[in-house]
Amino acid sequence: MPTPEAKMEKGELIYEGKAKKLYITDDPDVLLQEFKDDATAFNAQKRGTILGKGAINNQISARLFQFLEKEGIKTHFVKLVSDREMLVRKVQIIPLEVTIRNVVAGGMAKMLGIEEGMLLKKPVFEWHYKSDALEDPLINDDHIFALNLATEQELETIRRLSFKVNAILIGFFKERGLDLVDFKLEFGRFQNEHILLADEISPDTMRLWEEGTKKKLDKDRFRRDLGSVEEAYQEVLRRVMDVRT
Amino acid sequence: MPTPEAKMEKGELIYEGKAKKLYITDDPDVLLQEFKDDATAFNAQKRGTILGKGAINNQISARLFQFLEKEGIKTHFVKLVSDREMLVRKVQIIPLEVTIRNVVAGGMAKMLGIEEGMLLKKPVFEWHYKSDALEDPLINDDHIFALNLATEQELETIRRLSFKVNAILIGFFKERGLDLVDFKLEFGRFQNEHILLADEISPDTMRLWEEGTKKKLDKDRFRRDLGSVEEAYQEVLRRVMDVRT
Repeated sequence: MPTPEAKMEKGELIYEGKAKKLYITDDPDVLLQEFKDDATAFNAQKRGTILGKGAINNQISARLFQFLEKEGIKTHFVKLVSDREMLVRKVQIIPLEVTIRNVVAGGMAKMLGIEEGMLLKKPVFEWHYKSDALEDPLINDDHIFALNLATEQELETIRRLSFKVNAILIGFFKERGLDLVDFKLEFGRFQNEHILLADEISPDTMRLWEEGTKKKLDKDRFRRDLGSVEEAYQEVLRRVMDVRT
Repeated sequence: MPTPEAKMEKGELIYEGKAKKLYITDDPDVLLQEFKDDATAFNAQKRGTILGKGAINNQISARLFQFLEKEGIKTHFVKLVSDREMLVRKVQIIPLEVTIRNVVAGGMAKMLGIEEGMLLKKPVFEWHYKSDALEDPLINDDHIFALNLATEQELETIRRLSFKVNAILIGFFKERGLDLVDFKLEFGRFQNEHILLADEISPDTMRLWEEGTKKKLDKDRFRRDLGSVEEAYQEVLRRVMDVRT
């Protein structure tokens, strides 16, 4: 796909989510994605603000999308246009959230009644149905087909890409002294043809533990009132921007 | 496997569940399974008694296990020994509940926010982790491996057998004017070698709707306070005992 010319005109707001806004641009295939400082957790029952989060997540996502593109993963990322704005390809989001887990934490620990921190012998892959009203339930392939959310081929593609993203990001963070515990991905259909990695990749959507100390450097600091939330996001930004690979 | 000689000695109670008790017998490979009239729903938050249920479910399960055996499915069933008792092979229960759904109802309707009654183009298969404390959560193969609950080969065997049971039972009930909406199965390891269909198959563990009228003839009458609970169980018994096949 050719990289679209930068269209800087920020048009009408067409979507506002919990952490981001999307605006149309002059190019019908390109949107402007703006990152907010708003933070929510537990299906928006907990709300707050993390100062500077929008700008940090924009920079982190841009860096990770660029790194993944270099490794052969097609993403919706086009280019950064400001502190908290990036241009992205306009995709039709598939209403599924992929979670990949390398270490037991969060929802998996709670669901199965096991301790956080157990290293998984192989990564655990989960599909969640993207629905705030239903609290993003864990589902399986059969539910996806019953709801006509995606085709068998799309699921295969997304599963393959997700495991590849996991392998790439584990290495990326390892070099920066961080363990990638788990993360969430979203994918979209571009021009009814390509499946692109979309949304964002940031401490809002990943669990990152400092190697050795296991200090949490992600949204769990906000979810669980652990303090030093802004500092954790800044620390991740600092390490992500460290140009080793 | 040779059919064990009938050992009628009812020994020590070794397990009491919500709907059944298990006793040892003279034969170390055989247990006596006794069906209770107790009924529970919504993870035992709702409790009651369905008069005659124990005897009815014992007869229905026996008939269905025998029918499935004839069709090539290995089960734990040995023989009926009284109104509410059957002898079964002693298996190590795999802590998974298989649900197969032909029509949307119950938990799937609630989880996905869709209407009950939608016919599924292909059956939906679900694994649930058998745990009262965790409310039998829906899980996937990766969670099963992470918890070491079963091997990949066991899951394949159970999946294959479950779909076969579904195909057989759909036909069995169709001939008796009943639609098999969904059902739950449990499997066990016998002598560390064979996978046997275990537990029970009854209106406690299946949804059966009368063809045409869609009248519910299963535990939903108890769960949802629909009345005529005993009559529904008796009606299913009557139809199951109708010797057509």
